[in-house]
Amino acid sequence: MAYFDAASAAPLHPVGRQALLAALDEGWADPARLYREGRRARLLLDAAREAAAEAVECRPDELVFTPSGTRAVHAGIEGALAGRRRVGSHLIVSAVEHSSVLHTAEAHEAGSGSVTEVAVDRTGAVDPAAYAKALRPDTALACLQSANHEVGTVQPVAEVAEACRAAGVPLLVDAAQSLGWGPVAGGWSLLTASAHKWGGPPGVGLLVVRKGVRFAPQGPSDERESGRAAGFENIPAVVAAAASLRAVRAEAAAEAARLRDLTERIRTRVPASVPDVEVVGDPQRRLPGIVTFSCLFVDGETVLHELDRAGFSVSSGSSCTSSTLTPSHVLRAMGVLSEGNVRVSLPPGTEAREVERFLTVLPRVVAEVREKLGAPVAAGAAGAAEHTVGGSGVLVVDALGRRCPIPVIELAKVIGDVPVGGTVRVLADDEAARLDIPAWCEMRGQEYLGEEPADHGSAYLVRRLS
Amino acid sequence: MAYFDAASAAPLHPVGRQALLAALDEGWADPARLYREGRRARLLLDAAREAAAEAVECRPDELVFTPSGTRAVHAGIEGALAGRRRVGSHLIVSAVEHSSVLHTAEAHEAGSGSVTEVAVDRTGAVDPAAYAKALRPDTALACLQSANHEVGTVQPVAEVAEACRAAGVPLLVDAAQSLGWGPVAGGWSLLTASAHKWGGPPGVGLLVVRKGVRFAPQGPSDERESGRAAGFENIPAVVAAAASLRAVRAEAAAEAARLRDLTERIRTRVPASVPDVEVVGDPQRRLPGIVTFSCLFVDGETVLHELDRAGFSVSSGSSCTSSTLTPSHVLRAMGVLSEGNVRVSLPPGTEAREVERFLTVLPRVVAEVREKLGAPVAAGAAGAAEHTVGGSGVLVVDALGRRCPIPVIELAKVIGDVPVGGTVRVLADDEAARLDIPAWCEMRGQEYLGEEPADHGSAYLVRRLS
Repeated sequence: MAYFDAASAAPLHPVGRQALLAALDEGWADPARLYREGRRARLLLDAAREAAAEAVECRPDELVFTPSGTRAVHAGIEGALAGRRRVGSHLIVSAVEHSSVLHTAEAHEAGSGSVTEVAVDRTGAVDPAAYAKALRPDTALACLQSANHEVGTVQPVAEVAEACRAAGVPLLVDAAQSLGWGPVAGGWSLLTASAHKWGGPPGVGLLVVRKGVRFAPQGPSDERESGRAAGFENIPAVVAAAASLRAVRAEAAAEAARLRDLTERIRTRVPASVPDVEVVGDPQRRLPGIVTFSCLFVDGETVLHELDRAGFSVSSGSSCTSSTLTPSHVLRAMGVLSEGNVRVSLPPGTEAREVERFLTVLPRVVAEVREKLGAPVAAGAAGAAEHTVGGSGVLVVDALGRRCPIPVIELAKVIGDVPVGGTVRVLADDEAARLDIPAWCEMRGQEYLGEEPADHGSAYLVRRLS
Repeated sequence: MAYFDAASAAPLHPVGRQALLAALDEGWADPARLYREGRRARLLLDAAREAAAEAVECRPDELVFTPSGTRAVHAGIEGALAGRRRVGSHLIVSAVEHSSVLHTAEAHEAGSGSVTEVAVDRTGAVDPAAYAKALRPDTALACLQSANHEVGTVQPVAEVAEACRAAGVPLLVDAAQSLGWGPVAGGWSLLTASAHKWGGPPGVGLLVVRKGVRFAPQGPSDERESGRAAGFENIPAVVAAAASLRAVRAEAAAEAARLRDLTERIRTRVPASVPDVEVVGDPQRRLPGIVTFSCLFVDGETVLHELDRAGFSVSSGSSCTSSTLTPSHVLRAMGVLSEGNVRVSLPPGTEAREVERFLTVLPRVVAEVREKLGAPVAAGAAGAAEHTVGGSGVLVVDALGRRCPIPVIELAKVIGDVPVGGTVRVLADDEAARLDIPAWCEMRGQEYLGEEPADHGSAYLVRRLS
């Protein structure tokens, strides 16, 4: 059994568990009360706040605990936007933010606000110059994650913060994926994080608002957490979160080096042992524990299922694993292949032999899924594609009603049937095709000519170059 | 050591603690994931939802878990109001709701909404006819607590629900104080509750929305908890909450009878052993564990402090114990004395000998505080009040700058100095005087003539009747 999905949730750190048990006994009372149980709870809450603030490198009175990282993001963005309402209602986010940021941006846009989404390059990183360019006189807030949750790419936060500072615009950093590894450098104004990502318990987020940043909490509030997070404080969880953060930080340097080596093995050896794989994300500027790759000609759901049967828990940004049947917005923004996508995110303590076993099992799993789907084993292999050559010499592949990865499999099967310079027209109505057909062209050195509306779904045009 | 403030927070039930520990091991993963840890978490979440729904007597798909009772109230009211936006934006609440309800009503009113606050009688209960009368064609929602958190009075929920149903208006019931004792009867439409009030952990609230009730969640949302409570599910806490609820329900009937007897002892014996005490709340229709009384001529803060030193943790609705220095809105709405207010709320398992010790200690504590404050020991006792008799024969007491309970003490000292039919004019700028001088008149059979603006603060006029 190997749990390789730490970027979704990490099990509670043993130190956090001990702290939780102690705080269940000592910290259950209302910290606003004057009697001894209340005073004891207040002491625990204050100590947890100080410990968390030290890890964030902020003042304790700048930090409040929220019921989740998601709530921290919602409250942080809404409060910062409202605090600068007089300046304007323009919000900047990157295209690869966590869904909690993007959902808040959508809600802002559905109101009277405007949103600019800053694009990323093929590694998933934003360009600080693009943020600088997006800043306007009416920009109320900019948001940028410290590192991406799906591909591990570390963002140039300090540079973007500098551009924002020059324009007098606060920057909110979603540090959910990185806070366990270290504080976020640079002159950010607001910061959010989520305890269950660093080995704390669920039920705890952090919202940090630097002194001097205009902030107006939205919605009904109460006197708890400086009026920024309503509801009875969850002190046992908060204490466990702070203790876990301190514990993972103590181990962070050594563990980062170890995990970086393990993910480097995956980055290097998967493309060598599995044909037709694209490893995505920045090879250098990345989180220690995350590595993500996509495999042509397989569907993510089946790969996940087979890996689960083999004892590996991983996640995927493939469309077939999402409830909306659309590929991950991160992979889409990067313009990389989404089919057969696998994210491996190693929790601290992952043993090398587990990674080695993964590297042994994966090629077999992918090969078996490909075989079942009838994927081409080599370019130009005899295919069973339903295709016709039109009057214009264009070869038409009808993949309507077929889900990812079938449209790409069909395309790959027939590309050898047209002469170099000839065109294949793929008819598909699966959302993933829009991302995966161009990505396949990029991987295979073929030319993607674009998409046209068709009677049903879309037609994707590909010119054979080699 | 006796913790008598269960209405604020109850320690975690041992069954809940066991469940929490088990679920920390089994339920930390993301229940939306397809691998085994995710499936295991999903099973725990589903089972907890079924158990909670059974206790509420609703369908599991009508119930979502929120990060707190406060969040359940905010989300429930906002969602119900938005769902019936076309009908209108009128909201009805009782004057004695929990602050989370009243804060949401204030936010609604600060927007474009209108709010009617239904008054209560001297026991803290609403009149169903008053709710029926408050209903308007543009009423979007009515809210009523199942029982009051400060005085324990049980509200006529079923009757109010019937009036609302007849008008086609949904009723939201805040069941925070009563759900541990049993399901809420009557045709309510929405229900909220808070786990740490029934012996569950902090970090869990319930929001129930009956099928067919129009509901539009507000603010940014995600796919969790039917889109009604954003953020990663806190499964260990949710599992512990459901297990605790089941456990306290199993003990509820026996424990209710036992605690009712203990609070009855306090209701009966405190007025007999402490002079000048008013026990507030309905003597019959009340929660088993709550009893509240107010003591003339003492300040709540000192009484709480002295009781804490004697080993009793209780709370108070007196102005001096609130951060805003205003008396509890509940006591104010009831029109009862707020000075020297003490709320005793017994957790399940409270032993009779602890209550007996409280009954022994309380008279001494109150007597000592009264002695320190120079309170009159009997009507007409020689006083040190600074007072003057004006030209009109009105006796003027200057209590400006003096905090509760001094204005009432000064009034009591001089009332014997004016003839029957004569008037005392008390000058005071402490907020509590507005409530406590009329309440004192009511208790002592004197006539309260009303309040007039004065150069500083207000003048309160009292006519001696006996």
